[in-house]
Amino acid sequence: MAPPAAIESYPETDTSSFTIPDRFTLQQVAKRRAASGKLVATVAAVADVDAFKGRTQHLHKGKARRWDHRLSPESRSRKGNSLKGAAGLLKTPGLISLGGGLPSADYFPFDELSIKVPEIGRWSDKEVHDHGKVLTAGKHDQAEGKSHFDIATAFQYGQGHGAAQFLRWLIEHTEIVHNPPYQDWSCTMTSGSTSATDMAFRMFCKAGDWIMTEQFTFPTMIETVRPMGVRVAGIPMDEYGLCPKQMDQILSNWDERERCGPKPFLLYIVPTGQNPTGATQPVQRRREVYAVAKKHDLYILEDEPYYFLQMQPYTGPNAPDVPPPASHEEFLRSLVPSYLSMDVDGRVMRLDSFSKVIAPGSRVGWITASEQICERFRNHTDTSTQQPSGISQLVLFKLLEEHWGHSGYLDWLIHMRMEYTGRRNTILDACERYLPKDIVSWVPPMAGMFHWMEIDFTRHPEYPQMSMDDIEDQLFLNNVEHKTLLMKGSWFYAESDVEKHKMYFRATYAAARTDQIEEAIRRFGASVRECFGLAALTNGANGTNGTNGTNGTNGTH
Amino acid sequence: MAPPAAIESYPETDTSSFTIPDRFTLQQVAKRRAASGKLVATVAAVADVDAFKGRTQHLHKGKARRWDHRLSPESRSRKGNSLKGAAGLLKTPGLISLGGGLPSADYFPFDELSIKVPEIGRWSDKEVHDHGKVLTAGKHDQAEGKSHFDIATAFQYGQGHGAAQFLRWLIEHTEIVHNPPYQDWSCTMTSGSTSATDMAFRMFCKAGDWIMTEQFTFPTMIETVRPMGVRVAGIPMDEYGLCPKQMDQILSNWDERERCGPKPFLLYIVPTGQNPTGATQPVQRRREVYAVAKKHDLYILEDEPYYFLQMQPYTGPNAPDVPPPASHEEFLRSLVPSYLSMDVDGRVMRLDSFSKVIAPGSRVGWITASEQICERFRNHTDTSTQQPSGISQLVLFKLLEEHWGHSGYLDWLIHMRMEYTGRRNTILDACERYLPKDIVSWVPPMAGMFHWMEIDFTRHPEYPQMSMDDIEDQLFLNNVEHKTLLMKGSWFYAESDVEKHKMYFRATYAAARTDQIEEAIRRFGASVRECFGLAALTNGANGTNGTNGTNGTNGTH
Repeated sequence: MAPPAAIESYPETDTSSFTIPDRFTLQQVAKRRAASGKLVATVAAVADVDAFKGRTQHLHKGKARRWDHRLSPESRSRKGNSLKGAAGLLKTPGLISLGGGLPSADYFPFDELSIKVPEIGRWSDKEVHDHGKVLTAGKHDQAEGKSHFDIATAFQYGQGHGAAQFLRWLIEHTEIVHNPPYQDWSCTMTSGSTSATDMAFRMFCKAGDWIMTEQFTFPTMIETVRPMGVRVAGIPMDEYGLCPKQMDQILSNWDERERCGPKPFLLYIVPTGQNPTGATQPVQRRREVYAVAKKHDLYILEDEPYYFLQMQPYTGPNAPDVPPPASHEEFLRSLVPSYLSMDVDGRVMRLDSFSKVIAPGSRVGWITASEQICERFRNHTDTSTQQPSGISQLVLFKLLEEHWGHSGYLDWLIHMRMEYTGRRNTILDACERYLPKDIVSWVPPMAGMFHWMEIDFTRHPEYPQMSMDDIEDQLFLNNVEHKTLLMKGSWFYAESDVEKHKMYFRATYAAARTDQIEEAIRRFGASVRECFGLAALTNGANGTNGTNGTNGTNGTH
Repeated sequence: MAPPAAIESYPETDTSSFTIPDRFTLQQVAKRRAASGKLVATVAAVADVDAFKGRTQHLHKGKARRWDHRLSPESRSRKGNSLKGAAGLLKTPGLISLGGGLPSADYFPFDELSIKVPEIGRWSDKEVHDHGKVLTAGKHDQAEGKSHFDIATAFQYGQGHGAAQFLRWLIEHTEIVHNPPYQDWSCTMTSGSTSATDMAFRMFCKAGDWIMTEQFTFPTMIETVRPMGVRVAGIPMDEYGLCPKQMDQILSNWDERERCGPKPFLLYIVPTGQNPTGATQPVQRRREVYAVAKKHDLYILEDEPYYFLQMQPYTGPNAPDVPPPASHEEFLRSLVPSYLSMDVDGRVMRLDSFSKVIAPGSRVGWITASEQICERFRNHTDTSTQQPSGISQLVLFKLLEEHWGHSGYLDWLIHMRMEYTGRRNTILDACERYLPKDIVSWVPPMAGMFHWMEIDFTRHPEYPQMSMDDIEDQLFLNNVEHKTLLMKGSWFYAESDVEKHKMYFRATYAAARTDQIEEAIRRFGASVRECFGLAALTNGANGTNGTNGTNGTNGTH
């Protein structure tokens, strides 16, 4: 990505020796729950987040910093709902309310909702179809004592933070995985991370501002923020993701007049399995980035849809696979620590999503941030999305709270880890077999859905008469001629007008069947050879026809 | 509301004589569907809206006006998704895509989703519980030819307009009810009308702008738009809703310097069962408002959550009820024509919602507007909410498309009409019985959830030593002492700093059980009498103790 000289890195990316102090265990959460008694949350109940976290269990930590100086005029000026004062009176015993305009649940035309889902460990489509567990929510399960969440509540209006019943589960999950190192952290649900990103930008940015992100990034993020009049500065990356020293330099040398805007303070990053580069920042890199964030008083949006698509190490085509994590603890320790887990200042808003690990169509995610930030976010939610779909929340609640629990969900995530490891290995093995390695090079991805390949366009027979852009175009269209679709790297530049020196293609191993992944890479290899004037592989693959050697993993570039 | 002298109205509010020209019938829609063949829409399919409307059936109409001059810089600057160009290539036969980052449906841990819902005409909770129909969606129903919508598609990422399968139903429903009188109308789904309102304001407004609305309005709307730096001008109302002549005067006399902002062009209205006043604009009022909109080149946001809570006429406590509509046609003719149905210019964005007639927790609604406006809206959706929950969409699809159909849904809406008529009659009968009518007066609501009562504060024994605001406060708190909660009218002013001459309370008859509604109004009557120093009702109700006569409906004020 950046020229090799710019790599600010360290050979070891192994993080298993990094101990998160004071990790919350499933047992601690279970014990606290047992002590707290039954959760009673009726229609549109306001959640008591501190109770869900354990009122005393975070008191030894410091408090988050205040971010008033970073909030946009829009966010600062949001007032609370004027009718909520009346809501406080609803607890008056014997009160009959003709106040709030909620329809009666009598008029929800649903008596039951059921889903058929995997028993723990029996994950395959066929096993679920043949032996899945059916979970049923009734209309009045709460009144009948059958559940603490039902259709009458879930299908009704709710609070901006989502239903207390499911929010508790999310808070506990966050505590188990990240245990934020400050006292007043909180969670609130989102209608998916794209919606949360849109709201976060409106919370921190105003027209004329700059924000920072990785030099290659998710185009939707750019398309979200640009219409707000906000400009995006792309920070150079290496194979370990965003380069903190270069970010420090950019910030230290920021010229407001030249840039026509103030020095940025908002950093949007995808630290794990980054889209499109697949890069995963090791823990040391994260600490360095966080240190630069402290130095320049940055606020960080940590967008982590791929966090649980961290995979087993890639061992190469001819070596045995690494066995799956032997326990939940080993699994959790294998995960790169999040920014949230090292955020002593409360300067991180972490965006979590179910889109990559349960189903994108749920449009349910959540953020974790300091209570000040969560409160502003909820306030915006109350006047925009209101809450994620209650139907989605009920489905997720039945699966995650009432069926799998935290433990079963970690089992599912380990299953996902192994499935993605298999898919990633398939595409890398196919690349080893079929791609001309003097032209195409890559770093094996450690997380996420994306395999990012650099193309040495200087080897094209018509270069330099033909420009890099034209070669990229030619190869893209030639791939389609060969019936395979990969994304152009140039579509992912954070700054479209930046001078480009490298050429990339992005392939995803998430969607296609594994036999199709291999075939698509075979076609891609043939397309590259054709474009670059190399002989076709006559014998099917590298190593059998002598064009390329296959010697384990393809080195870093 | 406005002083009687300002009423711009007409005695007849009956609209049954108004014929919507060229109404689409259920039969026409069914015939078109049969001719168009099977709908095939796979993952994230782009909907062919014109096919759903009938490609030739609207060609005789004129085209909508363009609204470029009304779009905000934010909306104008939105670009299409840069990766969508590649999506066009996905139709290449035999192509294997490693392009889009969609997770495989193999990893959605759901095999089936079922809902138990009413058979047509057997609407009660008990009937549904005992004899409801169970509708089931499988994971691969589309591939297996069982349905044209399934878990594999609905739980996946989708288009900003929502799933084509369900969008078709919404477009047909819109055509049957409103049949917009211009050619290039379109629909796109929303994550509920609050979200759609937030997006619409960002589409048309920028900081420093003014918008217009009814002088009393839904506080969330104000709280949505004010943080954007947009100010709200409240237009006087009478019992028929917003007063067009006064709006015309305000616009004609707009002084940019005095108001520190340009003349407004965006009108937000709730024409039917308005919140909080319960006012419903008759068709003649709507035509006059539309004429003023043409004169001043306004764009109208028609927010209509209560449209299908139009009720049967109120006949008074001692007269027989009006029988339900005898047919779908009679029902549709009984509805006040929407602005959309008279919108020859395409200057209306109509916001529809399932919150009041199916379930608020679905967070699914839709807008209808010209294709230009829908395109800008979808573009914003792609970078914010993405789409409403696919789980909600699948639930609604199974119920509305596959089970009830358009016909069964109209039957359900007639049921809702009769239920709300009963509730409204309950509260009005209770008001007749228990309220001191020389102090409390009202107009029987024709639609919606709200009963709006004027309090003659000048009859308070301490007036004028005690201010109107203090009397309102006293009565509100005294109601709570009497264990009944009504909302203060002053919470609903569009302009909080306007001089107030009248005092109101809002009661909803939507939520409480009917016996509780009656009891709450009895308590409210006792509370008013206490505050205003009247003797308590000794014998239970008006007409039995001689304090007030009960002579049919309470007249207009």
